[in-house]
Amino acid sequence: MPVSQIAIELTQAGGTYADQITGQLRTAIESGELQPGDRLPSARGLSAELGVARGTVTAALEGLIAEGLLETRQGVGTFVSVDALPAVRPRRRARPRLSIAARRLPRPEIDAPRPGAIDLRPCRPSTREFPRNQWRRCLADAAQRQPDPDYGSARGPLALRRAIAAYLRRARGYTVEPDNIVITSGSAHAMHLFAAAHAIAGTTAVVEDPGYALARHTFAMAGAELLACPVDTDGLCVGDLPMQPEGPAVVIVTPSHQFPTGARLSLGRRRYLVEWARRHGAVIIEDDYDGEYRYDVAPLPPLAALADDCVIYCGTFSKTMFPGLRIGFAAGPAEYIAAMARYQALTAYAPGDVVHRALAEFIDAGHFERHVHRMRKHYAKKRRSVTDVLSALGVDAELTGLDSGLNGLLRLNDGRSAEQLCENAALHGVVANSLERYRFQSKPTDDAIVIGYAEPTTTELAQGLNVLLSTSGV
Amino acid sequence: MPVSQIAIELTQAGGTYADQITGQLRTAIESGELQPGDRLPSARGLSAELGVARGTVTAALEGLIAEGLLETRQGVGTFVSVDALPAVRPRRRARPRLSIAARRLPRPEIDAPRPGAIDLRPCRPSTREFPRNQWRRCLADAAQRQPDPDYGSARGPLALRRAIAAYLRRARGYTVEPDNIVITSGSAHAMHLFAAAHAIAGTTAVVEDPGYALARHTFAMAGAELLACPVDTDGLCVGDLPMQPEGPAVVIVTPSHQFPTGARLSLGRRRYLVEWARRHGAVIIEDDYDGEYRYDVAPLPPLAALADDCVIYCGTFSKTMFPGLRIGFAAGPAEYIAAMARYQALTAYAPGDVVHRALAEFIDAGHFERHVHRMRKHYAKKRRSVTDVLSALGVDAELTGLDSGLNGLLRLNDGRSAEQLCENAALHGVVANSLERYRFQSKPTDDAIVIGYAEPTTTELAQGLNVLLSTSGV
Repeated sequence: MPVSQIAIELTQAGGTYADQITGQLRTAIESGELQPGDRLPSARGLSAELGVARGTVTAALEGLIAEGLLETRQGVGTFVSVDALPAVRPRRRARPRLSIAARRLPRPEIDAPRPGAIDLRPCRPSTREFPRNQWRRCLADAAQRQPDPDYGSARGPLALRRAIAAYLRRARGYTVEPDNIVITSGSAHAMHLFAAAHAIAGTTAVVEDPGYALARHTFAMAGAELLACPVDTDGLCVGDLPMQPEGPAVVIVTPSHQFPTGARLSLGRRRYLVEWARRHGAVIIEDDYDGEYRYDVAPLPPLAALADDCVIYCGTFSKTMFPGLRIGFAAGPAEYIAAMARYQALTAYAPGDVVHRALAEFIDAGHFERHVHRMRKHYAKKRRSVTDVLSALGVDAELTGLDSGLNGLLRLNDGRSAEQLCENAALHGVVANSLERYRFQSKPTDDAIVIGYAEPTTTELAQGLNVLLSTSGV
Repeated sequence: MPVSQIAIELTQAGGTYADQITGQLRTAIESGELQPGDRLPSARGLSAELGVARGTVTAALEGLIAEGLLETRQGVGTFVSVDALPAVRPRRRARPRLSIAARRLPRPEIDAPRPGAIDLRPCRPSTREFPRNQWRRCLADAAQRQPDPDYGSARGPLALRRAIAAYLRRARGYTVEPDNIVITSGSAHAMHLFAAAHAIAGTTAVVEDPGYALARHTFAMAGAELLACPVDTDGLCVGDLPMQPEGPAVVIVTPSHQFPTGARLSLGRRRYLVEWARRHGAVIIEDDYDGEYRYDVAPLPPLAALADDCVIYCGTFSKTMFPGLRIGFAAGPAEYIAAMARYQALTAYAPGDVVHRALAEFIDAGHFERHVHRMRKHYAKKRRSVTDVLSALGVDAELTGLDSGLNGLLRLNDGRSAEQLCENAALHGVVANSLERYRFQSKPTDDAIVIGYAEPTTTELAQGLNVLLSTSGV
């Protein structure tokens, strides 16, 4: 390797010669004038060139070697060290063009909070009645334990899986082992774990239309072709499922309370769907996102209780506890749950155990079911107030999907545009979504508004519905 | 559609004729003898065939129509309803062959807990000293708040992002805005969010070798080609990074304490790495998984502090708080953080807010830094006890990587196999990993054991090292 040329100038007023040599060499290295791996002239050569004692040059070089800016290679010479090079001037340089771009991902379509507004959008529970004292005690108990030095199970703490299994048996008639449960951050996350953990690419996934956008995104991101299936007042139109042998691999369905129309999948359709899935070797993803809330109707068995061999049951505590808890779960056949847990381990290790243990205690102590029971009555009252307000308003409309869940569907028969009503209402501090927002491929009709009635007070509901349904005249 | 043949037999003792007709039709439907969409004979035809009054047949059919098992199509006839069909016999049928298989995913390689064993594996903090009372109060305060009815930010609660930004500035000299932070479930999850949110497929990702298996898995799962880069006692050998213009898009590095060798990336290499990344438009993923613990050495600036334009800084509270907390974060340029938050919104909505708010308070109140400070002294003591035990044992070995972090690397000079020693120790209740376990493509040497010294007590450390290093003779 050739010796690098360096220009060192010594002055009388610049300090000791050794210091000047050291300083100028350092500057040359830091400025990039000298590059990593560059070979320096020998001490003898430098000494001759600069006209100083060889010991002076050696002292200067040894200082830089000690600093790690230079290194000697035995019998070869002195080099600029890789570890020294080159100095960085963070702010002076133009922003580098990076070679990585964001993936083209769909918009998440999560309703952004609208503080101060009367909010009639679906999926927002009322949190005023949440029993904070009981919850605080459960959290404090969980914090009392010495934390584990290990990372915990990718399926989530056993205590919580046990509590959920017992709850599903009591409340939903669905018997499942704790080992067949994986704790997630909610039902959308449960679907994501299923889609990401399985060979979904190139398969067909049936989605409800109108339906839940994140379910579509999740399976589309995993490479599935989406097939829209219509819904009516009995839920998913299962008679429209394709009958050819090489059919869809997955059906994603909200049987308790179709999102967002509120329809309940009839028992006959439940049986048909399960039979259809078995004949076609398909997996049913049952998104029971608010199955705890039903009012004057008898409970229907979840699909998972009818067929625990081909259904992944996805539940969430977002509506029964509160959304910020971020705890949900998937339950189903062992091999699917194992694959989902493995994917969770690969991406996030484990779901955590602080709030998880607190939630287990909250369920085991009966607080959870008492709270759900109270809230069922509470929401039933709000639901009545919606129908009362609508009667009083005398709007020519039909309100459906009220058997269960936290929202209904208002179909306008007076020719007004739902989209337009929602837009006008937003200008007056009332937020609501038209059904159009949830459509995928189905024909737009633009005559229905989703009415989430759980979170607003009854006064706000009356006010909100008044604004929403009269703004066309404002 | 042809009329289906049905065999109905009426008896004198079988109840009313109408009930018998209803019962036998229902059985035919539920057994699958009648299929959805099958057309029934007309009431007149049935009445003639069975020899009963037409009103009796009509009453029977109307009962089944009310039940939803049959449906009439105006002017066509009576059909078996799709909503009724067919009854499911869950247990009698062979397990269906499902069309979806698990993806071929790597093994997560997370160390499974070994209760009762003396555990010398890395990444396990001591949790005995964790200030549970202070933590409990922070949790109780967080539980005191009325929960939000909304889902929160996909970046995580602002209070926590603010607390982390302030901490990074104080403790690491890294200035970053709360908006440039996304809360994750740990540093592995931060890497996953980056890899999943960006167009990684087909790019090259440089990984340390030996190194962190999950980092390799994360980028391989996202479709990157992995390029192994060796490490030495100064950390990643940055001089080995490829110099051609179309180089790697990502470099994943553990500068504070190379995992698992414990080497600290020198300042010169830090500068070189940043400069290299800028020249090549590459992104550096800085995994600062235990950067809080350093002992007799001065802190070096994180790469993110040297170059906030091309570094994603990934941190975790798993070692400073406890692993089950599952809170970490990524900080970096706005466009990357935005893409990661979007991916998080699409898959899990938001990271949650109960423990997150508690952690924000724990940091803001100073508990966190006091705890880290105490633990730094505590771990320094344990580290000394490791060197003391090794001296006393008189093993011909070299212990490196002790400047910082929670583990060191023991290189044996006596020709014994590290793998063999670990295997033998496991039989005697002592768990440790040889360096081989962390290798990717580098040449096996089989002479080093990773010694995690944070979790065991000093007595257990002495006992564990004795068993580990003497078992070849057992």
